Amino acid sequence: MINNIEITDRRFALSIGAGSDAIHKDPQYSYAVTNLSDGNGITATGFAFTVGEGNDLVCKAAQFYADRIKGREIEELMGDFGKTFNSLSNEQQFRWLGPHKGVVHLGLASVTNACYDFWAKKRDVPLWKLLVDLSPQEIVNTLDLSYVEDILTREEAIEMLRSQQSSRLEREKIIQLGYPGYDTSVGWFNYDDEQVRSNCKKAIDNGFTAMKLKVGSADPARDIRRANIVREIAGDNVKVMLDANQQWTLPQAISICNVLKRMNPYWIEEPTHPDDLLAHKILAAEMAPIKLALGEHVPNRILFKNYLQLGCAGFIQADAVRVGGVSEFITISLLSKKFGVPVVPHVGDMGQLHQHLVLFNHIAIGHEALFLEHIPHLKNHFVHPIKIQSGVYVTPKEPGSSCDLK
Amino acid sequence: MINNIEITDRRFALSIGAGSDAIHKDPQYSYAVTNLSDGNGITATGFAFTVGEGNDLVCKAAQFYADRIKGREIEELMGDFGKTFNSLSNEQQFRWLGPHKGVVHLGLASVTNACYDFWAKKRDVPLWKLLVDLSPQEIVNTLDLSYVEDILTREEAIEMLRSQQSSRLEREKIIQLGYPGYDTSVGWFNYDDEQVRSNCKKAIDNGFTAMKLKVGSADPARDIRRANIVREIAGDNVKVMLDANQQWTLPQAISICNVLKRMNPYWIEEPTHPDDLLAHKILAAEMAPIKLALGEHVPNRILFKNYLQLGCAGFIQADAVRVGGVSEFITISLLSKKFGVPVVPHVGDMGQLHQHLVLFNHIAIGHEALFLEHIPHLKNHFVHPIKIQSGVYVTPKEPGSSCDLK
Repeated sequence: MINNIEITDRRFALSIGAGSDAIHKDPQYSYAVTNLSDGNGITATGFAFTVGEGNDLVCKAAQFYADRIKGREIEELMGDFGKTFNSLSNEQQFRWLGPHKGVVHLGLASVTNACYDFWAKKRDVPLWKLLVDLSPQEIVNTLDLSYVEDILTREEAIEMLRSQQSSRLEREKIIQLGYPGYDTSVGWFNYDDEQVRSNCKKAIDNGFTAMKLKVGSADPARDIRRANIVREIAGDNVKVMLDANQQWTLPQAISICNVLKRMNPYWIEEPTHPDDLLAHKILAAEMAPIKLALGEHVPNRILFKNYLQLGCAGFIQADAVRVGGVSEFITISLLSKKFGVPVVPHVGDMGQLHQHLVLFNHIAIGHEALFLEHIPHLKNHFVHPIKIQSGVYVTPKEPGSSCDLK
Repeated sequence: MINNIEITDRRFALSIGAGSDAIHKDPQYSYAVTNLSDGNGITATGFAFTVGEGNDLVCKAAQFYADRIKGREIEELMGDFGKTFNSLSNEQQFRWLGPHKGVVHLGLASVTNACYDFWAKKRDVPLWKLLVDLSPQEIVNTLDLSYVEDILTREEAIEMLRSQQSSRLEREKIIQLGYPGYDTSVGWFNYDDEQVRSNCKKAIDNGFTAMKLKVGSADPARDIRRANIVREIAGDNVKVMLDANQQWTLPQAISICNVLKRMNPYWIEEPTHPDDLLAHKILAAEMAPIKLALGEHVPNRILFKNYLQLGCAGFIQADAVRVGGVSEFITISLLSKKFGVPVVPHVGDMGQLHQHLVLFNHIAIGHEALFLEHIPHLKNHFVHPIKIQSGVYVTPKEPGSSCDLK
């Protein structure tokens, strides 16, 4: 039973330049942490991610939601978690503050993620193992499909999972092989050219075959110069992604992306405002065959559904510590699968939680095992930090979702 | 100079049933209030509206933004307020919590609105008078057009305002005539049939020629019965609007709206989730010529731009205490004008602030003077409560934005 609740505001210093992008000059990576315990050996951890200021607001929102699940038995709670998620996310007065977005939704993510961690620890298995062992019906019971039923009904979701079961064995090999990673830390925004150059070399030496560069500079020439540096070091066989962190207006994006595409980026990420669906549609048409990646700041399944319907997302970067947690992440993964779009999460969690979720996406939903973002900056703060070997995530073995903080 | 800042969490009890809708069973109308004073006679008030829980979170967000304008001279601040708005709304760490939506954006609305109130009081004129007397360039200087430039450039915005100047005199008659109101309080969700019946009669006796009913019941028969009651009392010459407060999924909305349209509603408001742009597009096509009204929960100019581009909004219900305040409200009004769509604000402010803004929209932007929502529940808490005579808002004469609370 969920007997004790503790919400904690954790903020961490980063080394100079780390984490910087076109908008966030000196982020302070932070977690609004929900701890749930049964007072009998199990302490679960879930969190939402912020970049500093206002992490306390998310903590307050998490407290609001967590108070509403106190006293619940975990198996009973998770047996139809979709209903609880629906009722919490629509709690009549708090809903006004979203709905389903911003501070309140981040707070809900923190609590939801703690519930999944609790569930996996209760069953004494890693979260990925819990999830891949659930039946299609049990998975769908954890989801809230309201406002997406026009595209994905409960019956269809169950059938999508069922249809993947016969071919699972082949995909379960990923457990031994490990899930490929890509390196985001080669080219933070504030790094100078020499740092970018040496980080690229290091990434390749460490076995990465994909890496990301921050662009979106006020001076387009800087973006172009840095992109060419990465391509030069990486060579033609390494995937290079460019991330503008929403910095461009549509006219700017069209103009600069038409130059940047000459270095053949694997994707262009967050070219403009995350609410501007039609700008993404126009830009995607302009940039084809180069694809757009988006979703780091898209708050819920409903907006993701719209992006998928418009056909402008080449890669869906849902983040389980931005949307309403694991439950909504899975809903978005099912929607993406239906539209044939790969899910490559943004890892506000540093990959701790998402290493479980991409295994589930691959094995149970049949998503391609493309690669998972790798950001190492908070590694030392975790009890079970992710392990990367030769550019590949080593499948976690510890019970839970690997989110316990020291 | 803005010397003192005070943020206050104000919550008000409502009489039973008042304010209730399909989602909010017992709202507690609340304001996150920003007071700015120069310590020399001027105390300005701005607020954001919530329905209770979490009003304290909005207050904390308002404090964050207000601290950043302390010490500014009001004329200097408002002379290029668009820049300040842009910089506050993109403050690098707080931005993560939106961006431009939810708790943080509500906080920004509160502060922005206090700045406009301060400005009008400083010039000793009502806000509407301040705004209609500003030159096109001065107005546009108060706006942040970032992320909407693909549709509305600074030059075009100035030209739109300039082109209306020659025909203003005719429209200024509205100052004497007063701006028409419509009555939202006839049919709150929890009111029984008899209450609805007698409220409708009262509204008509009071001179209203337009009124709104809450629908979105779990039992569609209830919606249909109540809608027919209102039409019966109101007769064919009164406009009746139906408001579902986001309660329907798209399939539900299509099904029930096809029945409800038989009583010829003037609009159907918030039929489904405010983030579901394409659902609105599908429904709008299905319902034509009956139009959809939307925007009460749409948080910023970028999503409004998308709704307008999709052509599915028959009426834009931007609310200056939901979007980032007066500045963003004006931006959205200009966008709406460009697309030929009327602006009929949702009045989270009970009409206190919006009575000024619709006068500006009519006189300076050339929007049709359709009508403004009227909700009387917090009237007694204002120093200068709105005055409705024969269903018409009497133009306010006091300096400022009429938002001072007792």
